Amino acid sequence: MASAIITSSKLYPFPSPSLKPSLFLRSTFLPFPSSITLPSFPSKSCPKSLPISSSLNPNPPSSQRCPPYIPNHIPDPNYVRVFDTTLRDGEQSPGATLTSKEKLDIARQLAKLGVDIIEAGFPAASKDDFEAVKTIAKEVGNAVDGNGYVPVICGLSRCNEKDIKTAWEAVKYAKRPRIHTFIATSAIHLEYKLRKSKEEVLDIARNMVRFARSLGCNDVEFSPEDAGRSDREFLYEILGEVIKAGATTLNIPDTVGITMPSEFGQLIADIKANTPGIENVIISTHCQNDLGLSTANTIAGACAGARQVEVTINGIGERAGNASMEEVVMALKCRGEHVLGGLHTGINTRHIVMASKMVEEYTGLHVQPHKAIVGANAFAHESGIHQDGMLKHKGTYEIISPEDIGLERSNEAGIVLGKLRFLTFTNSMVLCYLELDMNVGVGPMGGRHALSDRLKELGYELDDVQLGNIFWRFKEVAEQKKRVTDADLVALVSDEVFQPDVVWKLLDLQVTCGTLGLSTATVKLIDADGREHVACSVGTGPVDSAYKAVDLIIKESVSLLEYSMNAVTEGIDAIATTRVLIRVEKSHLSTHALTGELVHRTFSGTGAGMDIVVSSVKAYVSALNKMLGFKEQYPAKASSIERTPASS
Amino acid sequence: MASAIITSSKLYPFPSPSLKPSLFLRSTFLPFPSSITLPSFPSKSCPKSLPISSSLNPNPPSSQRCPPYIPNHIPDPNYVRVFDTTLRDGEQSPGATLTSKEKLDIARQLAKLGVDIIEAGFPAASKDDFEAVKTIAKEVGNAVDGNGYVPVICGLSRCNEKDIKTAWEAVKYAKRPRIHTFIATSAIHLEYKLRKSKEEVLDIARNMVRFARSLGCNDVEFSPEDAGRSDREFLYEILGEVIKAGATTLNIPDTVGITMPSEFGQLIADIKANTPGIENVIISTHCQNDLGLSTANTIAGACAGARQVEVTINGIGERAGNASMEEVVMALKCRGEHVLGGLHTGINTRHIVMASKMVEEYTGLHVQPHKAIVGANAFAHESGIHQDGMLKHKGTYEIISPEDIGLERSNEAGIVLGKLRFLTFTNSMVLCYLELDMNVGVGPMGGRHALSDRLKELGYELDDVQLGNIFWRFKEVAEQKKRVTDADLVALVSDEVFQPDVVWKLLDLQVTCGTLGLSTATVKLIDADGREHVACSVGTGPVDSAYKAVDLIIKESVSLLEYSMNAVTEGIDAIATTRVLIRVEKSHLSTHALTGELVHRTFSGTGAGMDIVVSSVKAYVSALNKMLGFKEQYPAKASSIERTPASS
Repeated sequence: MASAIITSSKLYPFPSPSLKPSLFLRSTFLPFPSSITLPSFPSKSCPKSLPISSSLNPNPPSSQRCPPYIPNHIPDPNYVRVFDTTLRDGEQSPGATLTSKEKLDIARQLAKLGVDIIEAGFPAASKDDFEAVKTIAKEVGNAVDGNGYVPVICGLSRCNEKDIKTAWEAVKYAKRPRIHTFIATSAIHLEYKLRKSKEEVLDIARNMVRFARSLGCNDVEFSPEDAGRSDREFLYEILGEVIKAGATTLNIPDTVGITMPSEFGQLIADIKANTPGIENVIISTHCQNDLGLSTANTIAGACAGARQVEVTINGIGERAGNASMEEVVMALKCRGEHVLGGLHTGINTRHIVMASKMVEEYTGLHVQPHKAIVGANAFAHESGIHQDGMLKHKGTYEIISPEDIGLERSNEAGIVLGKLRFLTFTNSMVLCYLELDMNVGVGPMGGRHALSDRLKELGYELDDVQLGNIFWRFKEVAEQKKRVTDADLVALVSDEVFQPDVVWKLLDLQVTCGTLGLSTATVKLIDADGREHVACSVGTGPVDSAYKAVDLIIKESVSLLEYSMNAVTEGIDAIATTRVLIRVEKSHLSTHALTGELVHRTFSGTGAGMDIVVSSVKAYVSALNKMLGFKEQYPAKASSIERTPASS
Repeated sequence: MASAIITSSKLYPFPSPSLKPSLFLRSTFLPFPSSITLPSFPSKSCPKSLPISSSLNPNPPSSQRCPPYIPNHIPDPNYVRVFDTTLRDGEQSPGATLTSKEKLDIARQLAKLGVDIIEAGFPAASKDDFEAVKTIAKEVGNAVDGNGYVPVICGLSRCNEKDIKTAWEAVKYAKRPRIHTFIATSAIHLEYKLRKSKEEVLDIARNMVRFARSLGCNDVEFSPEDAGRSDREFLYEILGEVIKAGATTLNIPDTVGITMPSEFGQLIADIKANTPGIENVIISTHCQNDLGLSTANTIAGACAGARQVEVTINGIGERAGNASMEEVVMALKCRGEHVLGGLHTGINTRHIVMASKMVEEYTGLHVQPHKAIVGANAFAHESGIHQDGMLKHKGTYEIISPEDIGLERSNEAGIVLGKLRFLTFTNSMVLCYLELDMNVGVGPMGGRHALSDRLKELGYELDDVQLGNIFWRFKEVAEQKKRVTDADLVALVSDEVFQPDVVWKLLDLQVTCGTLGLSTATVKLIDADGREHVACSVGTGPVDSAYKAVDLIIKESVSLLEYSMNAVTEGIDAIATTRVLIRVEKSHLSTHALTGELVHRTFSGTGAGMDIVVSSVKAYVSALNKMLGFKEQYPAKASSIERTPASS
């Protein structure tokens, strides 16, 4: 890091006083008296103001995108590591519980994106979390690509030996394992959460980082929780101590999302300027979004010298979530070269849309239409009738090309309405459908092939059984709908592929309902052994009665927490996708990383179909399957592990 | 403005070089050589670093919150005007069409919030837009409260006489009318959109501001569209010219959302430093959110000297939307005093939640669960079992109190799951229900009274007819559900109150559906004259068949663009709210402000009920009613009005 800064200082000397101020993209808020000792942040981050252009830089070659991995040093001074914590901090969102299989799918997608570090979970939370991290470490953590890229697999642990040992046991199978340990350092957390003195916390942090290193882990990240509200001098001290103890990355969390960008940038600059030994480690940001400033804070941190950013796909996470990967990465991609001194990441942005959809699907946390980069409206303009060349130059209102994030443009005008923008009518799909028709006589393989190709273009690589199932359902839809679209196809894939292992399956359903009351549903389910079960029930509506009938068969006492539905395509005959979220009282517990409390897991399920009652029942059965397939584990200790002296 | 800056400079002199850098919350990215002439931004914006506290400042007294209104001057140097453009820029979002009544409701809520300026619409877009702005100007624009507060009512217009005249005709009825006119100034817009030279644009801007003043409007705002990408010198020149011509507010839009916060702050500081006459006007920000930085950019602009911020409720708007009011306002409220030099607004934050819900409801643009401030999870932590005092101190993870934005805390622990956080089980509601039961014998007035009180607590003031309708539906729900919650109540209110005038009404519905196919629906509707109409249809599912039956009766050729549904409360017997969005081809056109194109209006409808098929049909009929009640207008000219020389 030190050499990096020297290099960039040489390239971009501080501006001479004779230059006109407006030529410089400094932050304005306070003049910086020149006689003050400057904290050593890279001056390259603020070169001359260049004209704002709407064109993006093409991806640099992968060798440049991904410098060789050394835990505490990055050979490229402007390379910013992306640390994705969708699987840890994101999964902590209410209702976002993921199964091991779902976590593995997401980890694979994160590797496709080229994230530098995957925080795969909090192994001490439960046996399931442990197994998920271990599986990801073994599989994704060893899949080295042609350029030598393989993501670091990281496990979170509180500052105690048991957590750290557990984390190591899970991540050690990866080619590049990392342990991330944390303890709170703010006065309010010391007093009300830890009930410990600064000295005690300092001792624990030092000892536990040393302990992590002693296990054979040479890549240890340390976070002072609630750093944004911590006493500066204490922060410098504890960070200096953990560096001596062997930490290689120091992560600075704004745990409650309270800082302003100028303030967070200053925090990073101060840490860089005042922490002994800081030149030998990587500084990282972790910004919560409580005031809607997480992306700006993250970028401010990087400008001030942080070279790792902790982010999540779609910005999910507890409360208002985290800095969202797509926003941070696209901001650096759009403006890194011109405005941010050349800062860049190694992310292959063309996988962003698929990652966003996958995380939305698996966690059940929907993305609002006006979400930056990945929202349904992000690239949509109101449909205009008279286009007459006015918008022919895309740059007039568009700074990012949809293709850059893996979004196909629906047509050359690129102007479509609402949700249809994402995955909308394409000629290739209509062709595919036609081809299916033509191939009926000669067997379905021609159609299957076209379908498989289209799915690959959409980012789905399916095995033969999956492809076969999708194919038949696709044909079924094609027989009923006028136009089959990519969106329909994606919904079907979600319904077939993004599903938990089947314990129960819906065979038949019959419902009568309406304003006259006495909604009645009859349900036929098939169990894992192939036995059929039938039940009927009345209810307040078709879904209520059908769910009650399912309950009569499956006999699990669950609460329905959320229920939502979206039509995925235009038209009254659209496919609708239903999502439900359920919780079982008195079981399926997990330890919360930050608070140390036991929390109830919740399980989401989705179902797709043209009949909303059928898709609702499928979603419910899917959530029940997810719940039944989840290995139930009670963590050994109920809570408060963090308060036990770490040396015990 | 000039005096404002001098005052604050006096209060907070520049730090002397002997002070330690880390004591100052300056933005870090570039040192600022002391010999450079400083642009005159308020130095008060960066006082000494104060400890970050989790407590908010109480609202200052309203007299302080709302200084006397003078178009081009604010007596309080740190007061930031809030200019809400939900009704103009927000309504431009795909699918967000609002009726005049809905606009009026939202304008009233904005006045409750205490916004300084309401941009009520773009009067030249269509006859309906004109009427909506005029109604708001007459009603909301004249409702002066006890403290002398009344919002400015603003109408947008392109830079031509016809638009400006139309805007004036609509806003002139307000006590404080404003015309907001704009023209693009960036090279790319000049070349591809306007096809005009800089000199032509300069001429038009100057003449049109003068024209607006000549109509008798003493409050004229001018925006150089795409300022973020405009040539600086040209920007200073055109802004200087419009000041001379009589502009009182200069709004600086980052139209494509491309700037970084440091850069946008610098843009404002540069304009402040280099525009002749700038000390006599108010500078305003308008930040789009394409890179997720609109809130940060807006705050950076205010720190650099802007004293008006253009925002929307929930951050809605075209593409990724605008800076969201709740984020900007809460950031200033939380950190204005300590970190942002005392910047503050006059917003009564306790009305934020209701405004957010109303805009979500009316526009159909849902808010994601992890949206800052107003998302369903924004204050939710995962439910913990062992709370044992660890989270008793709310400040550990909470920087804003839910009550501050008008959110009742569900229980003292404040820890609830998922969507239920917003308006969840309260003792008062259960009591209300019990009271209803007890009052059955003595007539319903006791229950009605309790219901009316509860609704007032929730922010709804209903007339007698509305209350009566709600009461009977509430009883109906109470008979079927175990627990009736505030959320149920809000859903019913939405279903009764937030509805367009009735043209068609659903009387009865009967549906049979299931996996066996041949879904069949029979629908009975009643028209405005009280005649009953019955039709039946088959379809691919219950909704498809029911909608087809409705189409057989109403005979309007519409496209269904979106369909979504949410259960509003926990439990399988929950009330579900359905939203649909429809479009009619070949009618209901409106002129788009920025592009000048004709666009199709789209209409949303909602319906609530315990039977999802019934609520789906109600939503569809509601959208049809909204569409049928909308005055259809074809703007006189198809497009390209902006290109016509403004003097013609």
